[in-house]
Amino acid sequence: MTKTVLFSAPAASWESYAPFLKNLFDKVGLNINLVQDTNNPLNVDYIIYAPNGPVQDFAPYKNVKLIQSLWAGVETALQNKTLTQPLARMVDPGMSAGMADYVLGHVMRHHLGMALHGSVQPGEWRNDTAAPLACNRTVGFLGIGALGMYCAHAVAKQGFNVLGWSRNLKSDDVVKCYAGADGFAQVLGQSDILVLLMPDTPETLNLINADTIAQMKDGAAIINPGRGPLIDDAALLVALDSDKLSGATLDVFRIEPLPADDPYWTHPKVLVTPHIASETRLETSAAVVVENIGRGETGKPFLHLVDRSAGY
Amino acid sequence: MTKTVLFSAPAASWESYAPFLKNLFDKVGLNINLVQDTNNPLNVDYIIYAPNGPVQDFAPYKNVKLIQSLWAGVETALQNKTLTQPLARMVDPGMSAGMADYVLGHVMRHHLGMALHGSVQPGEWRNDTAAPLACNRTVGFLGIGALGMYCAHAVAKQGFNVLGWSRNLKSDDVVKCYAGADGFAQVLGQSDILVLLMPDTPETLNLINADTIAQMKDGAAIINPGRGPLIDDAALLVALDSDKLSGATLDVFRIEPLPADDPYWTHPKVLVTPHIASETRLETSAAVVVENIGRGETGKPFLHLVDRSAGY
Repeated sequence: MTKTVLFSAPAASWESYAPFLKNLFDKVGLNINLVQDTNNPLNVDYIIYAPNGPVQDFAPYKNVKLIQSLWAGVETALQNKTLTQPLARMVDPGMSAGMADYVLGHVMRHHLGMALHGSVQPGEWRNDTAAPLACNRTVGFLGIGALGMYCAHAVAKQGFNVLGWSRNLKSDDVVKCYAGADGFAQVLGQSDILVLLMPDTPETLNLINADTIAQMKDGAAIINPGRGPLIDDAALLVALDSDKLSGATLDVFRIEPLPADDPYWTHPKVLVTPHIASETRLETSAAVVVENIGRGETGKPFLHLVDRSAGY
Repeated sequence: MTKTVLFSAPAASWESYAPFLKNLFDKVGLNINLVQDTNNPLNVDYIIYAPNGPVQDFAPYKNVKLIQSLWAGVETALQNKTLTQPLARMVDPGMSAGMADYVLGHVMRHHLGMALHGSVQPGEWRNDTAAPLACNRTVGFLGIGALGMYCAHAVAKQGFNVLGWSRNLKSDDVVKCYAGADGFAQVLGQSDILVLLMPDTPETLNLINADTIAQMKDGAAIINPGRGPLIDDAALLVALDSDKLSGATLDVFRIEPLPADDPYWTHPKVLVTPHIASETRLETSAAVVVENIGRGETGKPFLHLVDRSAGY
């Protein structure tokens, strides 16, 4: 029997995704009618969703088995009170690979002191600036979900000592795992470079603030490819100006694009990147969508379902 | 029987190396008299050597079995015509690890476009600049000796497509190996990022010149942690100015420290680092010295002997 999948994302996404999705549905033998809109919401079996897509009222879609987000972050989706159907986050292996590149690259930037080398005066030959070996540096991850753990492993492969904090204690062969308030203080206190990969929830708001920064190692650096509200920006700027922290790489902000008058842009210890740490990749994310719809059709549990009480 | 090992390197090196060496000689049961100078050259069995150490005339040391360099590069040693004894390069696992950090870090710098992100105007939100996945980028190594191969593996672990060129064809599970003139052109033509880790010999002088740059991919980047004379500097500057090449990270130069009026210092596409890509590390390099002297005492072949006809 043909199933109807409604694609509710901006038109540009349709242009790029539709051929990949149709090809993959055929390949795995799913009989799917992929549509951009419909007059009969009750006929829709699945919705492929982006928060900036056309459907904003999900109440009429009473027979939908799964809303599959194309975005990794679901804070906007969860603010939509009409969206009560099972919701899956996008966990895209291509996105994970891209994020791991970003995280490892910026870990190396701080580790090697590239900012110093880029800012010396001509002729200033600071050959006292060779980095310690990676095995003598500790990189901490706040957030070791699927994405965070993938990035932590990429960093560990290069020989760094890697710590990770999550709400519920995990175990891992290479990442030393912590949970709870004590564990949080441990990761803060040991990390030379701290990577923020937590979701944006009421509990993570201003996670990095004057109090938590005070618990960090002197001279530590912060990388934030997670979410802007994780950081109390005023507190971070104070810590950078006072040399408590040595640097920051920031990819996400409370307001995006980051306004031209924001002090981050010109701060000598900050590198701003324009929310490009990673993006959903067509080939790999289309495969995830098709896999999850296939699971719905064969009675298997959906992957990456959002836990609404946890907020991600 | 006690053997005499002469340590001919600057006094500061003696301060740092002597305790490590003595401890390790004891540990492996070698009966060694480690000295900073001697009145009886004929009594010396081994010399630990740095080109800037006190001994410059090696002719009197007729009974020396091995001169073990503390430096990876041996071009200065080979210019000393009195130094005819077997000579071993330093192949230090700590140095390899540090070099791999440097190479991977600067590969990531070019891969992620950090220079662009660091040079935009406040408010310029270039969110079209997410990098392709590492698997869609090719990194070529000119020089895959012990050090180059180690670095190539670190880069391959992150998912890049990795090529390597050496004088004699090697084979490897992850690095696609090339040799000869045809192979050289292949590596030049395929690499998005080219890493120079060849020794300084008459054959490698100006390896990167107008002709070889012309064979490179448009927009490729160069990383040189090898030796300064590998690059024809004028040709590189022309290629950067014409946008043939997108950037360069340079750690070594014909004259070091690099003079303040050198155009590299202020070139927007060049990052100068002050010959800190890697350095010999005490703990690990002392272990290499002790290993090689132990081999001499037990009749095993020495490691890392220099081939004088090849120049390294």
